[in-house]
Amino acid sequence: MGRVAVTDGMSPDAISMLEKAGHEVIVEHHDNDRILEGSLSKFDAVIIRSATKLHKNQIKSSVVENGGIKFIGRAGVGIDNIDLDTATKHGIVVCNTPGASTKSVVELTIGHLIASTRHIATGDRKLRKGEWAKKELRGSEIGGKRLGLIGFGRISRGVAKIASAFGMEIHAFDPYVNEDIEGVTLHKTAEELFANCTHISIHCNLTEETRNLVNSDMISLMPGIGLDGTKCGNHIVSCARGGIIDEKAACEALESGMLSSLALDVFDIEPLGDSPLLEQENFHGSPHIAASTHEAQDRIGIEMASLLIEFFQFGKPSYSIN
Amino acid sequence: MGRVAVTDGMSPDAISMLEKAGHEVIVEHHDNDRILEGSLSKFDAVIIRSATKLHKNQIKSSVVENGGIKFIGRAGVGIDNIDLDTATKHGIVVCNTPGASTKSVVELTIGHLIASTRHIATGDRKLRKGEWAKKELRGSEIGGKRLGLIGFGRISRGVAKIASAFGMEIHAFDPYVNEDIEGVTLHKTAEELFANCTHISIHCNLTEETRNLVNSDMISLMPGIGLDGTKCGNHIVSCARGGIIDEKAACEALESGMLSSLALDVFDIEPLGDSPLLEQENFHGSPHIAASTHEAQDRIGIEMASLLIEFFQFGKPSYSIN
Repeated sequence: MGRVAVTDGMSPDAISMLEKAGHEVIVEHHDNDRILEGSLSKFDAVIIRSATKLHKNQIKSSVVENGGIKFIGRAGVGIDNIDLDTATKHGIVVCNTPGASTKSVVELTIGHLIASTRHIATGDRKLRKGEWAKKELRGSEIGGKRLGLIGFGRISRGVAKIASAFGMEIHAFDPYVNEDIEGVTLHKTAEELFANCTHISIHCNLTEETRNLVNSDMISLMPGIGLDGTKCGNHIVSCARGGIIDEKAACEALESGMLSSLALDVFDIEPLGDSPLLEQENFHGSPHIAASTHEAQDRIGIEMASLLIEFFQFGKPSYSIN
Repeated sequence: MGRVAVTDGMSPDAISMLEKAGHEVIVEHHDNDRILEGSLSKFDAVIIRSATKLHKNQIKSSVVENGGIKFIGRAGVGIDNIDLDTATKHGIVVCNTPGASTKSVVELTIGHLIASTRHIATGDRKLRKGEWAKKELRGSEIGGKRLGLIGFGRISRGVAKIASAFGMEIHAFDPYVNEDIEGVTLHKTAEELFANCTHISIHCNLTEETRNLVNSDMISLMPGIGLDGTKCGNHIVSCARGGIIDEKAACEALESGMLSSLALDVFDIEPLGDSPLLEQENFHGSPHIAASTHEAQDRIGIEMASLLIEFFQFGKPSYSIN
């Protein structure tokens, strides 16, 4: 049985699951200075979200001879706040919960896509100003159009399934996917994907390869006319990570009409603050809430608690990153 | 060949289709006074949308002995602006285009549903105020919940198909539907539907039966806890007709928390103007744009042009209301 620090909160069901399995759980935030002074070294395991940073020195301060943390759990997906190499060097097992939020991200992506093509945020904004902008808000259907997915992992495939039900034709670009997938046209380059699709949704990680992948050259390739012949314009959605879309280029493309809409849940700099995007009528955004549902947070907690229980019971969890 | 008045506009493709078939098309608005003075009696047919009113006296003024209009085309669905009895009495054929906008209405309904459960309009509103409301905007998934459909016609079935793809369980209430439908639980009363469903979408006509059908008694029956056990609250969407939801009751239910969200494309009084709904954070709306897409308007035009061409060619169209 272990002593577990939960530093960024966790769902109550998950905590009680850990306690029932005999673990001592202390839910409390540890700030950076305390961690560097060794506050985590009195624990066997730590469960974090994104607020706690476990870089090289923080991890070193959390291990002591014959003691300290042996397990780092990231309740969520992104592990940019954990130095994986240092953890591995000290024999610390690192786990995240990549599948738990898939459904929530898929739903928000589809929601943002239709909110863009049908002016949902704009319509509401105008209603609240007393404007009945019925004529000006003519939209377009997503059915009968091509959806281009950048990255074709778990979330992207979920989006493809729903988009197909709407009657969209599915295209994807993912250099790490080689198998043939029924009903999906895989493109060899991002350029080819953009040149074929009026609707694009981003589902890749932020890496040096994908930084500013969506730039003005790429956007200018988009056809503007749908597979069904409708002048539907070009639409881009991202619930992935900030930095993949060049925000300045996207803003200019909205301004020039090259892009008809842009919906973002993620930004270069978060919180967003004052951005030129907010001056564009055809932009709408949300504050990085793709995984922020009751269901996803519950699943994340339960999945993380299970991994930690397995680790203490069998010496290794059924899934880990390192 | 006939002389056709198009009084509320029509898609260019549809107009050229009529002209190619040899008809003379005059696109021009006729105001009420002109119609009462007989301006339409010089035409063989008229195609309207919702702006032109053809009540009893307007129709009488549009027919003359051995002449006047013989065909009224409503480019769209609702025919509350046409006096059907008077038209029938004068031997005028009335047609509308009920199927042409189905896909567009289905898409907006799903868009509004997710915009509600994931706070899309609210998130954007807050971003534009400089607020990064990530914590406050935790949402819930639609997958794993029960969707209750009021009315189970063409649009409702389209919504059911997509909602099923998201993993919703489909329930419906429609006194005019008796057959068993696979995967759909049909309820005998509206009360039973509301008592079983956390998510409700309206897809019936406005009649004396359905006026204020969604009132505080009905809303108070909703369970607030999803089929999957999530405390997701209660959510109502309508892209049908104003008057079916008691707006005052819905507003109070948002205020009290009985209702977690309300999304409306249609209102008691349109344009909406100044409404207490606009003071509710969990309400969002659009200005009656469910059929307002390029695709639906094109399909409506082509369908209406075909019906009119058939009428002049064969003496009756392949489909009519009377």
